[in-house]
Amino acid sequence: MNIILFEPEEVSNNRVIVFDRRAKHIVKVLGSDVGDRLKIGVINDRIGTGRILSINRKQPHRVELLLELTKVSEPKLTIDLLLAMPRPIMLKRILSQATALGVGRFYLIQAKRVEKSYWKSSILKEEQCRFQLIQGLEQAIDIHLPEVEVHKRFKPFVEDVLPKIKSHYSHLLLAHPEAKYSLVETITEKPVKVLLAVGPEGGWIEYEINKFKEQGFTPCTMSERILKVDTAVIALHSQINLAKEFLAQYSSP
Amino acid sequence: MNIILFEPEEVSNNRVIVFDRRAKHIVKVLGSDVGDRLKIGVINDRIGTGRILSINRKQPHRVELLLELTKVSEPKLTIDLLLAMPRPIMLKRILSQATALGVGRFYLIQAKRVEKSYWKSSILKEEQCRFQLIQGLEQAIDIHLPEVEVHKRFKPFVEDVLPKIKSHYSHLLLAHPEAKYSLVETITEKPVKVLLAVGPEGGWIEYEINKFKEQGFTPCTMSERILKVDTAVIALHSQINLAKEFLAQYSSP
Repeated sequence: MNIILFEPEEVSNNRVIVFDRRAKHIVKVLGSDVGDRLKIGVINDRIGTGRILSINRKQPHRVELLLELTKVSEPKLTIDLLLAMPRPIMLKRILSQATALGVGRFYLIQAKRVEKSYWKSSILKEEQCRFQLIQGLEQAIDIHLPEVEVHKRFKPFVEDVLPKIKSHYSHLLLAHPEAKYSLVETITEKPVKVLLAVGPEGGWIEYEINKFKEQGFTPCTMSERILKVDTAVIALHSQINLAKEFLAQYSSP
Repeated sequence: MNIILFEPEEVSNNRVIVFDRRAKHIVKVLGSDVGDRLKIGVINDRIGTGRILSINRKQPHRVELLLELTKVSEPKLTIDLLLAMPRPIMLKRILSQATALGVGRFYLIQAKRVEKSYWKSSILKEEQCRFQLIQGLEQAIDIHLPEVEVHKRFKPFVEDVLPKIKSHYSHLLLAHPEAKYSLVETITEKPVKVLLAVGPEGGWIEYEINKFKEQGFTPCTMSERILKVDTAVIALHSQINLAKEFLAQYSSP
């Protein structure tokens, strides 16, 4: 927890009282005392410091803070993620790790090789999902919560939703280990906003790849080595960001 | 398990009999039958196919295979990892994920912010450590097991070991979120072999950074966002590999 985050409705007159894991963190990990200033954020709102007004070190931990907050502009995140619904335990990790890396929006969609049972997972409940995202923000010192969209049917998503959103993106990339071209060959202009589609364990089927191609996606590969979905998401996200930096530096203006 | 791996001593006259999780995988996940050919590897030796000679689908699962193997040359891996000993549960994940990405050698070393208890973890036992590495190879379809070196004292490692090994590397990089230069600014020549040092949760201390600098390491950062060690390892590994591809393509010959 590199920043302590609050929901806007927890704050009243710039004061907040906490009892939960955040209070425990302040008492047990930070070992803070009255008068100390902590790095604080209000989700999707402002960032700043909180001065400890009172603290109860015993159970139940309780900390009262006076907040000093300033507006921050929303970061210009380059990447949105389109994921074939991953195994729930993997999705949990992806949501927090990708949020830490910086993702604007997650689209979780159906695909042939997605097990139907995954859609029943409690991780899709708003509260649990939000908790994973918040952990990512706490790690990366950010207050801007990514959006999560769930689309339980493949065809309506690709045929009805994608056509409406694809114009927001400069690059539509489909991760596919067997693709002909590498990321370096695919991204030749500095990406402004990328929609990166990552398939299920076992990969996209031919029909799905063709459907994505019809919508303008380019299949590309990062390596011959087959990676787990969570590893692939981090690896590709990082590579796209680096490609952006490289092209800014090396391509002619 | 995208390839089924055997230890050299398991193979006799190109035949092998398996009972464990590999037999279970063949029976339960692949649903294979007598006569089927499976992708097979012998660790640090050869790769090929295994034809099923006999199979017991009931408990205990048992599969007998006839192997056809060919030599493969060792892959030219760009990156070795130098890690401040991570939290054991995180190390487990890093060993298999980084092996899947392709790492030649891991150096696990002591640092000020490494908890002493980590060194007592069973993950450092050869058998358990090897199991994580093998899982990475099984994922990436590789047979070349990375080496793992353990150095429980910081100063002897940096002062006595590093001077002897550093000449093997074209780049000595120290991941440090507060570093002045980015990876793109740091890697300006196509890397041949990189030693990437990643610190503990909480980061390297000033003394450690200076010691690494004395040995020729360049501190560099990938982002202002603070990442967990496992996320950072994958992200940096992927970025260094992409930097190599970019420089091969964009820099003048």
